[in-house]
Amino acid sequence: MNEEMQVLFDNVLILLEEKKYIKLRELLMETKAVDLAELMEEMEDKHPNNSMIIFRLLPKDLAADVFSYLSPNQKRNIVDTLHENHLRNIVEELNFDDKIDFLEEMPANVVKRILRKVHDDERKLINQFLNYPEFSAGSLMTIEYVDLKKEMTVAEALQHIRNNGFDKETIYTCYVLNETRKLEGIISLRKLILAEDQLYIEELMDTDVISTTTFDDQEEVADLFKKYDLMSLPVVDQEDRLVGIITIDDIVDVIEQENTEDFEKMAALLPSEEEYMNSGIFLLARRRIVWLLVLMISATFTENIIGRFEDILSAVVILAAAIPMLMDTAGNAGNQTSTLIIRGIALGEISLDDYLKVLWKEFRISIIVGIMLATVNFFRMMIISSASLSISITVSLTLALTVVMAKLFGGMLPIIAKKMKMDPAIMAGPLITTIVDAMALVVYFNIAGLILGIY
Amino acid sequence: MNEEMQVLFDNVLILLEEKKYIKLRELLMETKAVDLAELMEEMEDKHPNNSMIIFRLLPKDLAADVFSYLSPNQKRNIVDTLHENHLRNIVEELNFDDKIDFLEEMPANVVKRILRKVHDDERKLINQFLNYPEFSAGSLMTIEYVDLKKEMTVAEALQHIRNNGFDKETIYTCYVLNETRKLEGIISLRKLILAEDQLYIEELMDTDVISTTTFDDQEEVADLFKKYDLMSLPVVDQEDRLVGIITIDDIVDVIEQENTEDFEKMAALLPSEEEYMNSGIFLLARRRIVWLLVLMISATFTENIIGRFEDILSAVVILAAAIPMLMDTAGNAGNQTSTLIIRGIALGEISLDDYLKVLWKEFRISIIVGIMLATVNFFRMMIISSASLSISITVSLTLALTVVMAKLFGGMLPIIAKKMKMDPAIMAGPLITTIVDAMALVVYFNIAGLILGIY
Repeated sequence: MNEEMQVLFDNVLILLEEKKYIKLRELLMETKAVDLAELMEEMEDKHPNNSMIIFRLLPKDLAADVFSYLSPNQKRNIVDTLHENHLRNIVEELNFDDKIDFLEEMPANVVKRILRKVHDDERKLINQFLNYPEFSAGSLMTIEYVDLKKEMTVAEALQHIRNNGFDKETIYTCYVLNETRKLEGIISLRKLILAEDQLYIEELMDTDVISTTTFDDQEEVADLFKKYDLMSLPVVDQEDRLVGIITIDDIVDVIEQENTEDFEKMAALLPSEEEYMNSGIFLLARRRIVWLLVLMISATFTENIIGRFEDILSAVVILAAAIPMLMDTAGNAGNQTSTLIIRGIALGEISLDDYLKVLWKEFRISIIVGIMLATVNFFRMMIISSASLSISITVSLTLALTVVMAKLFGGMLPIIAKKMKMDPAIMAGPLITTIVDAMALVVYFNIAGLILGIY
Repeated sequence: MNEEMQVLFDNVLILLEEKKYIKLRELLMETKAVDLAELMEEMEDKHPNNSMIIFRLLPKDLAADVFSYLSPNQKRNIVDTLHENHLRNIVEELNFDDKIDFLEEMPANVVKRILRKVHDDERKLINQFLNYPEFSAGSLMTIEYVDLKKEMTVAEALQHIRNNGFDKETIYTCYVLNETRKLEGIISLRKLILAEDQLYIEELMDTDVISTTTFDDQEEVADLFKKYDLMSLPVVDQEDRLVGIITIDDIVDVIEQENTEDFEKMAALLPSEEEYMNSGIFLLARRRIVWLLVLMISATFTENIIGRFEDILSAVVILAAAIPMLMDTAGNAGNQTSTLIIRGIALGEISLDDYLKVLWKEFRISIIVGIMLATVNFFRMMIISSASLSISITVSLTLALTVVMAKLFGGMLPIIAKKMKMDPAIMAGPLITTIVDAMALVVYFNIAGLILGIY
């Protein structure tokens, strides 16, 4: 909790204890919905009963707003405690896309119970929306948009917006449809406001509309928003009929969600939408164990390599001392490159055609970095660790070669993954480390064999 | 280039070769500014002269739009080739925040040359904006907003917007100022449009305004946008006077920028704003070498540890074979946890008060994960690697203990960093791997000494 929230929390608690509900209600009504949601979650942790009292005090529209910001657990809580009629009022007040989000989070029996109370037409629509795949444009969109006709004048259009705009998600972009609901153009409220009253929509609307279809992936949708600085985006079906719109506030969440997914994949985690603090330990353990097992088992490789070179190692046991350093540096060097490439691909700055350029660039960088590291390492070993000349040379040479290999692999693997339509993010640190480690060991023992004259 | 862009590219090239400039101009004018910018960059790569021809063909306002999307290199190019007067026209057409961005990217002599042509008042303002620190709210804002007075009626306000809205960044949120330009409230165009004409702004405006100050960090500003689903945010000075506004399209860029910075820090890279493909190899090498050196030198530690246990290692050389697997698994396990915690802190899902909960959670998870890994590893070693029972037990036991340690460290270090006002992102994989590696080796050799009866 930040300070402001703490003050609010304490004030609410005092008013609750003194049973000053009218004053409390006034305080709540002055507070923003998202802050009230946070307040309720904090209350739930510390004084569980109070959180429902707060919710019951809210007027219907504010309650719906707050409800849409609550965690799934808290929503579930309210569904279980609140009287049917009161709950129905809240659900009715929700924006259409929040309603869909809420129903997606609830177990099937709750969804059924709520849908039973809903009007036939809306139920059909809700069911259609619940069927859009997760992470698709369809699952992000809302139906609360303003539609105009191209035969309207600016004055008529503005009047239409005034009459119909109240319950729309946005009125700042309006959609021009024909009789069959085909999308013919868009026009911003800005353009309408600044235009002369008697002009026709047809003369003003933008017909070169950027749109998406219900089954497009949310990541592609977010890319369109970023590229064209959009505020909203129409979603059309195969016949180009408008089925909904997506607004920028939802896209901001998508961007963070996609970034989180990349962070998680790059750290050898199975992604999940559940927040860390709300996840059970078994779920969290399951997300981790898969990759840890795969990577551990593939370490059988490195084991075999060391086993194969046991002779060299027994002859000069101190060779083992440098293994961790060599492996860590190789892993870090590969990880640096793969992170830059993965990120570059995700942001659209690196395209698949660039792979030769990337390799050439990484080759030159790795030569610079490799020589610097090897030089520093040579003196480090000679001076700090007082290692022998031949061992210092062996380790430093291996280091330089390994860094070059690591950077080439780190640059190549994400692009190959992308070419194979896989997510480049899995070609990150952990996997590259495992591959590069094995190579580092082979190089190391071969160089040692040569320089130390063992064989 | 995607397909559409390729088609555009080819068409433009044909029209250029046939010198059909009028037709080309028509084609260009039908294309979106951001796509034209991409087209120019592609041209620059393949037919450098054409890109300037294209730019010269654009009408002034479109040229300014396109210009704002170009890379710093390309902008520089245009500044160097274009005639003074033509350039001045373009710069004048730029939105105020794009103008500031452009001037920030240019070398001092270019900035001077351009500012010489600018009106006194504007030059003062530009200099003020150029002085806001990078990554501050001040550096993100624009002055092109609509201001209203609370004494206006809705009809008057709408008329005011119609008269003054043309060159504003947004007209969807209007700012209500008093005579001294103090921010008294905000009102959305939506509310204005849907309200009755004779009502006063004072009755309608929202006085509980979320705002920021010029020196606030862009990351905090982005958090406000995310939390409150804002479209724009007023920036005020210490006396609460409105100095500018920030709009959501710039925040989307900030979010991606902050995420990239975290990705880079977590991969032991010094962050940079320069795109990978546009960076020189020396810049890229410098961003990498610092952490690689630090981490390599701190590996002197692990070297010492192995050196100290040389007796055990010479007695049972095959112990070395498991070192890479133990180290990688420890690193991966720690990395998984630190990534989740760093991300949780960045998204505001994990707060500093949660550190005990995090530790307790990680402890239980690591027990589950550790036991599973150790069990699988035991059978893997006994069956696939036909290792001896005592060695298999030694390695498996070490593995379990190491995973627990790695996860506790991975959970603790980012939170400690945050408490010490450092960026949690540096407490990621590479650093944690180095620390956990050293611990893993100590545990390993001690257990080996005990179980194998060496000492």
